[in-house]
This record gives sequence, structure tokens and C-alpha cells, in this order.
Amino acid sequence: MEEAQRLCFSTAFAGGRDGGIGGGSLPDAEERDMLSRKIVAAHDRLAKGTGDGSDMRGWLNFPASYIDSAEFRRILAAAETIKKADVLLVIGIGGSYLGARAVVEALTSRYYNDIRNGTPAIYFTGCNISESDYAALDAIIEGKDFCINVISKSGTTLEPALAFRHFRAKLEAKYQDRPKEADKRIFVTTDAKKGALLAQAKERGWKRFIVPANMGGRYSVLSAVGLLPIACAGVDVGALLRGAAAAQKAYAQPGAVPEDNACYWYAALRYHYYTRMRKAVELFAVYEPNMTLFGEWLKQLFGESDGKEFRGLFPASATFTTDLHSLGQYVQQGERLLFETVITFEQPANALGVTKQEHNGDELNYLAGKTLHEINETAFRATALAHQKGGCPSLHISLPGLDAESLGWLIYFFEKACAISGYMLGVNPFDQPGVEDYKSFMFALLGKPGEEHDKTRADLRAAYGMNI
Amino acid sequence: MEEAQRLCFSTAFAGGRDGGIGGGSLPDAEERDMLSRKIVAAHDRLAKGTGDGSDMRGWLNFPASYIDSAEFRRILAAAETIKKADVLLVIGIGGSYLGARAVVEALTSRYYNDIRNGTPAIYFTGCNISESDYAALDAIIEGKDFCINVISKSGTTLEPALAFRHFRAKLEAKYQDRPKEADKRIFVTTDAKKGALLAQAKERGWKRFIVPANMGGRYSVLSAVGLLPIACAGVDVGALLRGAAAAQKAYAQPGAVPEDNACYWYAALRYHYYTRMRKAVELFAVYEPNMTLFGEWLKQLFGESDGKEFRGLFPASATFTTDLHSLGQYVQQGERLLFETVITFEQPANALGVTKQEHNGDELNYLAGKTLHEINETAFRATALAHQKGGCPSLHISLPGLDAESLGWLIYFFEKACAISGYMLGVNPFDQPGVEDYKSFMFALLGKPGEEHDKTRADLRAAYGMNI
Repeated sequence: MEEAQRLCFSTAFAGGRDGGIGGGSLPDAEERDMLSRKIVAAHDRLAKGTGDGSDMRGWLNFPASYIDSAEFRRILAAAETIKKADVLLVIGIGGSYLGARAVVEALTSRYYNDIRNGTPAIYFTGCNISESDYAALDAIIEGKDFCINVISKSGTTLEPALAFRHFRAKLEAKYQDRPKEADKRIFVTTDAKKGALLAQAKERGWKRFIVPANMGGRYSVLSAVGLLPIACAGVDVGALLRGAAAAQKAYAQPGAVPEDNACYWYAALRYHYYTRMRKAVELFAVYEPNMTLFGEWLKQLFGESDGKEFRGLFPASATFTTDLHSLGQYVQQGERLLFETVITFEQPANALGVTKQEHNGDELNYLAGKTLHEINETAFRATALAHQKGGCPSLHISLPGLDAESLGWLIYFFEKACAISGYMLGVNPFDQPGVEDYKSFMFALLGKPGEEHDKTRADLRAAYGMNI
Repeated sequence: MEEAQRLCFSTAFAGGRDGGIGGGSLPDAEERDMLSRKIVAAHDRLAKGTGDGSDMRGWLNFPASYIDSAEFRRILAAAETIKKADVLLVIGIGGSYLGARAVVEALTSRYYNDIRNGTPAIYFTGCNISESDYAALDAIIEGKDFCINVISKSGTTLEPALAFRHFRAKLEAKYQDRPKEADKRIFVTTDAKKGALLAQAKERGWKRFIVPANMGGRYSVLSAVGLLPIACAGVDVGALLRGAAAAQKAYAQPGAVPEDNACYWYAALRYHYYTRMRKAVELFAVYEPNMTLFGEWLKQLFGESDGKEFRGLFPASATFTTDLHSLGQYVQQGERLLFETVITFEQPANALGVTKQEHNGDELNYLAGKTLHEINETAFRATALAHQKGGCPSLHISLPGLDAESLGWLIYFFEKACAISGYMLGVNPFDQPGVEDYKSFMFALLGKPGEEHDKTRADLRAAYGMNI
């Protein structure tokens, strides 16, 4: 396969191979020129670092260089150590959680813990404040040999800090006479230079990996943040990086026509649907249950990047055909506020077919000889056609197979498209200022010491008469 | 606890206990009168059967009567048989999938299969067309004693029919010399009077349960459709029904003022946010990961009921605090198209607290002595405050605990609110005509025999030049 063609982007049945359905949902010549100019301007801001948040572009040229780094080799070595354990607890939230879990499920199975072979069971914690969740994990690790990979830039983010305090105490209690055994089982991914977690790690001699300072959480899955837990699941993380590096090369420049760079053209069409077609929601749809968490990763990537200054497409996700039996009715006939971006894979990982049966009570014998993959692919085509016809434009991204190189390519495709989208929209695609609001109220209500929290408490008393 | 107060509905901080934030998002006196009249009209249509889809109101008075039925006793008996197996495969899609899985995860754990005690592992299949998913389940059931509960009104819905053909063949191959052993392990939930699955079940003597003819899939979780698999997980399904029956009684009539019936008032506020406040998306938010699938069930319930005739709120769901680190930025500062409906529980199932540590490197000692539940509750309050302040109105539903009676109550609350919402909106809340569009294209493309499919093929050839 020619690397430059690994990912195929098309506007599905909108003016494509199967006729002209929904052609009106594509930009006309005048708008295409405007989009083309906006693409070049956004590209320049990103490439030259003249846009907002330019100090957070570390992910842009990362994949091609990281694969030869010393830290990458240390990740592979650490993964071999962790693989000897029964259980790996990954502690992280947001970008320190979703990317790794999404890749593990996509490249192994959503049933990874049930069907793994020679690799540890992996549980993600530190991404909620649920007593039930803690209690379940306490039961799961009871009597097991478990390791911890705690991922936090600062070490003081509430959820992972709570989980690390809890599970570290379990580990230390287990090895109370041999503290070195506990320390050997803790792997830390944190800032290289500062923070509470770095200080603890240095003091205890825990193995350390770096959360790059120039990458936001949602752009960090291909750094140590994601790669260490992913490697522990037996995934070929080198192939993941190679796929991303190939995409980095393929999408480096705008082409002669906007369609030449699929990544930029996708970003431009998102902008078109949002501004010109007045769509409010982008529905990321997959046809493979193992990709469900990847949909969640996409929601974070685009939601946090676009959703500010009272603008941006609301990101939603669906796993079809499952959710055709829940959200399908709305997509077909509800408010016309949606467009969908569908991800499919040409080749299946397996080859299960429908067999003929003597008793044809289920009336499925007409499908005998077809593979499930062919039927799934047909369901996709029929659905895109129906949605277009119903007024929900359908964008389509297809890849040769659900393998590490393709997924690495896909991750980079979306990361760069997201950055370009943000600059087209006129926002900083790399910050998340709105996340501070609930945190500031929460720390005030929790009684956290500190002058800023005292000030918030005074504000809350004055504004709402709160007794705090 | 007074049954009539089991569920507490409030407009969170919108003019509530903590001051007047977001008060502008509540209806004024004039609109309140209009909503009050619309509530009574919708109630009359539902109660008297004068609205569209009146033949699908079977769920309305079901919970109170079903608990004393012979079929309910047969469910409990069948569950005891199934509990002796290692694995239960539940085959179903849409309403024959989401409700049961949501309740099992909510009342046991999202880690049910890892921590179950004396009950079978449960896997849900027949809700996708994924070869990877089939292959993983094939590996999981290998060498295990497994039962099948296949749930399909007709028996010819594509996804469950494919899965049943596949896994039934596995079961029959396993007991090829003792076909009675295979037949003993198949439990069928289907129409009482007609259909392909009923015919097969009669022929083979499989144990049968009924998909009520007067209940749509999304309203069927409290019938045999949901109760059999839920009972197999060891859940007290009697308590679930009792909770729903109590809600049935509590929400039977409109009150003197619209707030008196919380179920109706919630429906009215949804209508208010949609029509007057121009909100486009309702975000169902929970603070308990075990409730994540319940969010998916809500998306189906409201999306399929409201989303027609080019109208309706788009239903989304989030699990906080997890998703505050992904969707939180958008909710706080993106397009002002959202309102949120938050579900919390007053009492935790466990009582885990934060302990003081000598080394306070994570700076959490100020929380020592607090339970995780208290911290989670504070996160909810702070978030509702921040969202209201940012222009995202926040509705709040709270229940005493995440137990079977409360969840049964909550299910009925939402089912009835959904029906009332649909009638207020002027749509039939019980049909799903749009789901046929992709199915008709899919069967045509798959080459399904039949006159209607021939006609669709001719249409597709004529309209899009398709070579089929």
C-alpha cells in the first residue's frame, strides 16, 4: 500500500461514486475558494507558530522523532516488566485516560481483559470519584500481583491523586516489610521538571516517564502518556508511531487543490457544515464496537479544542449498527442539526461467514456465503445513503484495516484536523479555560486551603448566601 | 422513606436553595400557565388513549400488575437454572439490549463479570455485525457451559438473528449427541402469538417468555425482555418492579400546581428548554460510572420518542467527573445549546474515605476524614453551579440510593416523562418510522428476496445508477 493513500476520505454518497445525493451539502465554487484560503491561513499559523497556543504544538512533529528516542526504548523495557504482573492499574483522567484505553480496545478488543494472552489485565481508575468503582477494583486486585502506572502532569489533579493515594497505600500495605517491592511496581508519567508527583517519584526512586510540557492531554496519546499502558497490552507501539509518522509526512502541506490534503479538507468541511449549513452536532460513527472508546477520545479532542467563546460543533459519538436501534430514528428524522463522520475499515481482522442452515426459520439463508464484514459494510453503505437522503450529510474515512499503523495514522489525521479546525474557527485549539470554573467552585466547597480558594468562598457567600 | 418522595426533582441552583443563579432559565408565570395546560392535555391523551400510538401504552400500568403474574414467577425459576451456567449470552438489539445491560451494570457494577459471585458471566451480543466481536465471544465461551437468552419480537431482525444462528450452532455442535442439552440452554423472549422465533421455539421446546405486543422496545425493560437477564445477574427484580409500581402510583395524576407531579413538570421543562430557550441538546449526566449505560438507555428512550418530524432535543450523555475532563470545556463555554439533566444518589453503596498521610506530597490531607461520596457530591454541586453560571441550565434528579427500588422508580419516571414529552411536542412517542429507511436500503443491497426489496433495488438503480 502506498503510504500516502492509507486513509481514504470521501464525502460518502454526497456527489460521490453512487450518484448525486446530498450534493447540495457540499461547498459551491465560491465557498470552496474561501475555504481554500482559510486552509492556507490556518496551516501557516500552525506551521509557523503564529497562532494562539503555539507553545503547545509539541505533538506536531513528535511521532517521526520519538521512535528513535531513549525514552521510547525505556517504555518497551518497562512494559516487559509490567507484563509479568496479573493486573495493571492505570491512574489518569481526561487525556491521561481516554487515549490509552481507546487504543487498547481498538487494537485488541473491548473484551481485552477476558481474552488477553500473557499480558496483564488492565483497569483504568483515577478518572472518577465513585466509591463503587473503588470498591470493585479493591475486590479485583485482592491477592493479585499488581502494578500502577500513574499519569498526571502535576500530581495534584483531584481524581488521579485520590486514586493514587488509595491504591499506593494498598501496594505499600501488601509489601510493608519490603518497601522496595512496592516501589518497583509504581511507574510514573509526569512533568519532566516540576510538580508534586515528580518530587514523590524522585524520593522513592519510581521509574519515570515524561508528560511533554508542550502537548495538551488530548494530544498526548502518542507520547509516554499513552504508549506505556498501550505497550503493556501487547500492542505494537512502534507500528502505531510509524503510522502517525507517515501521516505527519502525508499531511505536512496544503495541496494544489484543497482536496489534496484530506486532513485539511476534512477540517474545512467541518467548518462548512458548522458555519454555512448551520449544523450544530458532529456525530462520529463507527461500525466496530472495539472503536467505541475511540469515539470518546474524539469527543474530547474536538469538544475541548472547538468548544469555547460560545461556539463550536457539539461532538457526539455512536457505534453502529448498535445505535441505529437507539439514535438512528433521531438521525433520520429528528432536528436537522447533525452531520456524521463515519470511520470504517476495509479488511476484517477475522473471517467469519454466514452458513446455510437446513431450517431457515430466521430467513437468513439468502446471506449464506457472505462474511459478517461484508454485511457490516453493506449496513454502512445503506445507512450513509439513508442519512444523506434524510438531510444528514455523511463524511467517510476508510482505512485498510484496524491495525496499529492505520490507527496511528488515524490519530494523527484527527489531531491535525482538529488544530486546523480550531484556527479556522478562530479559537485557540490548545487551551481549555472553561474547565477551571467548576474546579474553582469545587475546591472552595471542599475547603481547600489557599488564598485563591478563600477568595472564591467569599464570592460564593456574597453572591448566593452560601454558608461556607 | 415516604414512597411519594423517593425521587426528588429540582431545578438545581436555578432559583433553588442556593440562590437565584440562572433564574431566567425557568418559565415565567404566563408560560407556566401554558405549560400547565399542556401537561393536562398530554396527560389526558396518555391516560385516555386518545393520542397517537395509544395501542403501545402497555408499559403504563404494567409494573403494579406484573409482579403477581405467573410469567414473573417463571422468570425467577428460569434465572435459577441459568445461574448454574458459566456464561449467559444475551442476544438482542435496541430495547432488547440496552435496558437489561444498563440495569445490570447500575445495580451490580460495570465490572460485573469480574466480581460476580455465584452468578454467570453475562455478555450481550446480537447488537452489532462485527466479526471481531463474534471472534472474542467465541474465545470466551470456548469450553464453558453457556446458555442463550435470545430476545426478538419477530426473530428476523438482522443482528440478533445472525448472532442466534451463530451461537445456536455452537451450542448444537457442543451437544451434537444430546440435542436436548442444547435445547435446555436456550431461553426465548419473543411475541406471544406470531413470528419466526416463536415457531422455532415451539418446534424445539425452548422455554418461552413474552415480548408484550403493546410495548415498544424502549419501554420494555421491566417486562420479560429485561427482567430475565437482569434476574440472572442476581438483581432483586421484584424490588425493581415494586419501585416502578410505586412511581406508577405517585405520577398517576397531574397535581394542583404543575410542580406537584415531578414527572410531568420535568417533561414540561424539557419542552420549555427546547421551544422557548432554543436549547438543542439535553445532556444526561451521572456521577457514577455504573450508571453510564443507563445514559445510553435514556438516549434511546428520548431520541426515538422525540426525534421525528424534524424536531426534538438531541439526547447526549456524560459520566462526570470523568467527562468533565473531556466534554466539560464545551459544556462550560461552547455553543449555548445545552441543558443538563443530572442524576445523583444520596447514599453511597460503600463507605470509603480519604486517609491522612504523613507525606502530603499530593496535597490531599485537607480532605482527610471526608468520604469519596461527599467529595463526589461536592463535585456535582460545584459543577451545576458553574454550568448554570455559564448558561447551561441544570435539572437535578436525586434518589436515596442506587438500589433496585430506586432504579425501578427512576425507570418509570423517565418512561412516563418521555411519553408526556412526546405528546406535548405533538409527535407519537411510541413509533420509530425513520428506522425503516436504512433497513430498506440495506436489505435491497444485501439481495434479500422479496417484491418490496425488488422495488427498492429498481428505485436505487433509477435514482443513483447503482449496479445492483
